[in-house]
Amino acid sequence: MQGVFIKAARDLVIEDIPAVAVGARDVAIAVTRAGICGSDLHYFLHGGFGAIRLREPLILGHEIAGVVTEAGREVSGVAVGTRVAVNPTTPCGHCKYCREGLRRHCLEVRFLGSAMRFPHVQGGFREVLTTRAENIFPLAPDLTFEEAAMAEPLAVCLHACARAGSLLGKRVLVTGSGPIGALCVLVARHAGALEIVATDVNPFALGFAARMGAHETIDTSDAGALDRFTSEKGHFDVLIEASGNEKAIRQGLECVRPCGVFVQVGLGGDISVPLSTLVSREIEIRGTFRFDAEFKMAVDILNSGALDLKPLHTHTFPHRSVMEAFEKAADKSSSMKVQLSFA
Amino acid sequence: MQGVFIKAARDLVIEDIPAVAVGARDVAIAVTRAGICGSDLHYFLHGGFGAIRLREPLILGHEIAGVVTEAGREVSGVAVGTRVAVNPTTPCGHCKYCREGLRRHCLEVRFLGSAMRFPHVQGGFREVLTTRAENIFPLAPDLTFEEAAMAEPLAVCLHACARAGSLLGKRVLVTGSGPIGALCVLVARHAGALEIVATDVNPFALGFAARMGAHETIDTSDAGALDRFTSEKGHFDVLIEASGNEKAIRQGLECVRPCGVFVQVGLGGDISVPLSTLVSREIEIRGTFRFDAEFKMAVDILNSGALDLKPLHTHTFPHRSVMEAFEKAADKSSSMKVQLSFA
Amino acid sequence: MQGVFIKAARDLVIEDIPAVAVGARDVAIAVTRAGICGSDLHYFLHGGFGAIRLREPLILGHEIAGVVTEAGREVSGVAVGTRVAVNPTTPCGHCKYCREGLRRHCLEVRFLGSAMRFPHVQGGFREVLTTRAENIFPLAPDLTFEEAAMAEPLAVCLHACARAGSLLGKRVLVTGSGPIGALCVLVARHAGALEIVATDVNPFALGFAARMGAHETIDTSDAGALDRFTSEKGHFDVLIEASGNEKAIRQGLECVRPCGVFVQVGLGGDISVPLSTLVSREIEIRGTFRFDAEFKMAVDILNSGALDLKPLHTHTFPHRSVMEAFEKAADKSSSMKVQLSFA
Amino acid sequence: MQGVFIKAARDLVIEDIPAVAVGARDVAIAVTRAGICGSDLHYFLHGGFGAIRLREPLILGHEIAGVVTEAGREVSGVAVGTRVAVNPTTPCGHCKYCREGLRRHCLEVRFLGSAMRFPHVQGGFREVLTTRAENIFPLAPDLTFEEAAMAEPLAVCLHACARAGSLLGKRVLVTGSGPIGALCVLVARHAGALEIVATDVNPFALGFAARMGAHETIDTSDAGALDRFTSEKGHFDVLIEASGNEKAIRQGLECVRPCGVFVQVGLGGDISVPLSTLVSREIEIRGTFRFDAEFKMAVDILNSGALDLKPLHTHTFPHRSVMEAFEKAADKSSSMKVQLSFA
Repeated sequence: MQGVFIKAARDLVIEDIPAVAVGARDVAIAVTRAGICGSDLHYFLHGGFGAIRLREPLILGHEIAGVVTEAGREVSGVAVGTRVAVNPTTPCGHCKYCREGLRRHCLEVRFLGSAMRFPHVQGGFREVLTTRAENIFPLAPDLTFEEAAMAEPLAVCLHACARAGSLLGKRVLVTGSGPIGALCVLVARHAGALEIVATDVNPFALGFAARMGAHETIDTSDAGALDRFTSEKGHFDVLIEASGNEKAIRQGLECVRPCGVFVQVGLGGDISVPLSTLVSREIEIRGTFRFDAEFKMAVDILNSGALDLKPLHTHTFPHRSVMEAFEKAADKSSSMKVQLSFA
Repeated sequence: MQGVFIKAARDLVIEDIPAVAVGARDVAIAVTRAGICGSDLHYFLHGGFGAIRLREPLILGHEIAGVVTEAGREVSGVAVGTRVAVNPTTPCGHCKYCREGLRRHCLEVRFLGSAMRFPHVQGGFREVLTTRAENIFPLAPDLTFEEAAMAEPLAVCLHACARAGSLLGKRVLVTGSGPIGALCVLVARHAGALEIVATDVNPFALGFAARMGAHETIDTSDAGALDRFTSEKGHFDVLIEASGNEKAIRQGLECVRPCGVFVQVGLGGDISVPLSTLVSREIEIRGTFRFDAEFKMAVDILNSGALDLKPLHTHTFPHRSVMEAFEKAADKSSSMKVQLSFA
Repeated sequence: MQGVFIKAARDLVIEDIPAVAVGARDVAIAVTRAGICGSDLHYFLHGGFGAIRLREPLILGHEIAGVVTEAGREVSGVAVGTRVAVNPTTPCGHCKYCREGLRRHCLEVRFLGSAMRFPHVQGGFREVLTTRAENIFPLAPDLTFEEAAMAEPLAVCLHACARAGSLLGKRVLVTGSGPIGALCVLVARHAGALEIVATDVNPFALGFAARMGAHETIDTSDAGALDRFTSEKGHFDVLIEASGNEKAIRQGLECVRPCGVFVQVGLGGDISVPLSTLVSREIEIRGTFRFDAEFKMAVDILNSGALDLKPLHTHTFPHRSVMEAFEKAADKSSSMKVQLSFA
Repeated sequence: MQGVFIKAARDLVIEDIPAVAVGARDVAIAVTRAGICGSDLHYFLHGGFGAIRLREPLILGHEIAGVVTEAGREVSGVAVGTRVAVNPTTPCGHCKYCREGLRRHCLEVRFLGSAMRFPHVQGGFREVLTTRAENIFPLAPDLTFEEAAMAEPLAVCLHACARAGSLLGKRVLVTGSGPIGALCVLVARHAGALEIVATDVNPFALGFAARMGAHETIDTSDAGALDRFTSEKGHFDVLIEASGNEKAIRQGLECVRPCGVFVQVGLGGDISVPLSTLVSREIEIRGTFRFDAEFKMAVDILNSGALDLKPLHTHTFPHRSVMEAFEKAADKSSSMKVQLSFA
């Protein structure tokens, strides 16, 4: 079987890999669709992200849907042929964070396609993926693999929105309208937000935010574009920051009202923040990281048909065209969610 | 009667002022003790703080204790001679924030001794203060005026700690050990924190943190002083940041564990924050500003005798020596809480 | 002008009443639509509800929409002719609960059409209603008076759902499908609930729950109707109890999963609760009472067009046919929301 | 080695039992002190509690302290001879509740000395107990085994108080002053409660509540004993209900103020609750069950020396006098915490 390895920035190779043994509690999945995430792109463009560097060839990919081809002997209720989405997170279950219920902060977590640990945890850009049976979630008959492979970013956004508390009747600003920002718009709309304003400096992205349900989209290339939201100590109850951009963060903060919540989804480096606004308005800046129970929730919601993610999916490439796929994913003026197909 | 005006940085004058009429719902208070707060010091040293500037002579002072000398005709249950602490905050009761119960974010709030509004709200460094009867809280017989005049900063710290949620059994880092930091140590100890570590670069201040109940005090002049708290994704459940200092904030953030809470009490300018730590650990940075119900709670606690604030009070000067008092308050190597006495 | 008085159970009379002076901060409203609420019905059927008894003739009615006919001299920005919904709650602003921001628990609250206080607070079943300008909220051009007069019960349900926290992706059971239950279904659906099951013993009511968005409706006349939701420690994350019926409460509780939230909206007498289920599953039973900021939120949501309340409105009677209107409202097999029209 | 079995109500026998093999991740503990809990007493007096019945001989006991005598081969950092407290809870780690972080609601939990499952989970009233290494927590040198064996009920009370949120500056009513109620008083005092009132109908128990820090104790044999706390919609912010008694629950509820929290710790049968008080005051009744992270917190607090549990421990009997021990524990007029010693 084949897997797609990254060896260094812009160095992607397809290689044959041996099958992984299916343990008693494991399943093997024939991967059908695998999405390219922003972190995959960072590996592709920069050979890592933040302090994390590639130290050995790594199979990327953690947005995975496929079909069960084999189930371990202790696995019950999972038939060969079941269509599934795959939760890429495997916590250890024993460290102090796992024992406190904070499984996403597991000290020994294995996350598909990540160079965080060494040896790296090999990911899902491969023909067959072996994982724990606990990590798979069956799909409704009507749900496409394209959508199912977006369960992972949807789970990220469900968790981000959960960090904000109830959005019912709230005014929400989403800064950054890439795939994560656009999905947050969709989730906020689904959660009953009264008013959703989405921003970006990329008109192509803003179009997707509008399609996902933003009541208004604003191109923040113009420095004063949000000024009308800053009077009377700010307009928005909730800000979901999906850009990681300092300017967006600073502009956005001035638009959040007293006791408002600012959820930081986007990763980035050092950001300068105005302490006086944060303190005098008692704003809460909450980091958000991956998800726990929200993966199952994402599949449940997709299975229910309540959300339509299809408009976000713009391109699929066969895995042999992986270079082309990554180049397209890197072109933010013409792509949103790009996926690989296998077999 | 006399009042202490500030006209510009380091320009304090004592002037005669006319008596203020006592309205139907007001009381007049003969001020006995009035504390000098960090914001008073900012006016004294810099002629304002943040974006707020003196635009006319201002009577400073919002940490006030005294004796009722007159009560308006609709005021019931307040005898002349009652010893009281004074809540310096008067919200309007009608703006959108008041109507939502967020009275401390009132758009028209009148806060004693503040140049935020124009005309400025004249404060409590005067012989007789007239205020709404709702703003006074009677003192227990054993409570000294010195302690009662610290009800206001105690309320600030009760609110700051309330922003962190329950501290019972928690590990707490307090960065900055001035009067507010030291009071936060006291409150955290009273709230059942398991471990309290206090930091500062000023050994004199650290001594007060220890006296207030810190289990350990650390001089962070040494850059690596907190390194042992950063392993396994951080040690502290709660950080109370009372310095407003960028270095303290950045060092501190690395010591906070996943889903930990970082309460920002200290004011300051633009601060550079590492987004990756904030996001990947899902830390919550919560601004905290003044207090609402915590003022009454502060007086209730002081009246109960449960907390001893006396060690924080280092100096009292007669109001005629106000320059000397401010110079002493500005000398962090030899003073904590400095108060003025009147009459 | 005329008002509809209740003097005792089933004793409704229409009488001329003098105009009420419009104070400086007041407005006069020509009432166009006024809904009959469950509490109005209790007065009609029983002469009171709970411990509250009629002690003098009372104008009922607190679900009011109308048109501004006069504005006091200190009222700005309210034109005569403005179409508005009326918040029936006027808190005192000074009692301990008001000062803590819990305005709905005001010790001196004046609630339209209530016999709680004496003299009673005369309500909105009248041709012209005078109220504080703070209590009116303008309507969007497309919003009908029929819907606007449902802002009050919608606010009740927004508050009830807010008491449950975020409903996004949650499984929700609504017991009791009268107007309040059906509106809770609508709100829960709008808030992104994954699965909503509504119950009642009245098939007519269940039909409305289905129209409001329940995924499933269940007639609980059959004792075992909910048994399939009790396995594995219960199925629902949230229960919204809108019946006040002991059997519904006991059945429902067994369907709530560990750490689930049980919001009690329905009023009733003494109810027997199984302590072992409550304790061992750590269920939270939260009472919910009226609303605060949710009234404005209700009008904002209605103005946005996001919710369609029209299907709930089944009947309008001219105020001269008030007896007929109440008899219809009391007939749960053929009515949901019954309103009076004036002029 | 010997173990104490219960075969039916009041039928306790001491029998030889075979040693349990120490698995790779297990440890063996020589039990030194083992407390008798209220649930043990229920088995003794009634042969079970609630719906749970003895179906085979059961070793009771889940409040255990002892010394490590053997460690499995994969256990690191645990020396033979280490003095430890034992967490009696072993969740499965795989069921849906474990995966959501709600380990105390594990569908397959193994709790020492419980007849909930069949075969029953044999408990800690034995000379040597084998358990997972994850379940043991080392003791500070100064901590006695008597106190360490109370870590479990302390954890129950820490969790109960955590369910109430921060108690800092709050008014707290504790109904029922047995070992759990008295420990809740101690925890509430440690957490900075402003005022703690404890009730019981047993003067012996009330004496312990006073010793644990209650500001006032009230004998509720007199029906009107709490009436003075019911005016102005109630006095207490928090009620911790540790009796399971209907009269205490109903009296207590009337003393809780709007939006107050009522934590139900005590188990019981069906309890009649006044719905109108619950609803109109928006009281939250929260069940509380066992603990998760609070067991470690309990040992941490005991190790720190911050709490003194010794006054609660009234009797120790050698395990051979187990009948005498249970009779004493059943006599609420002369005992609080009764423990067994082994060897």
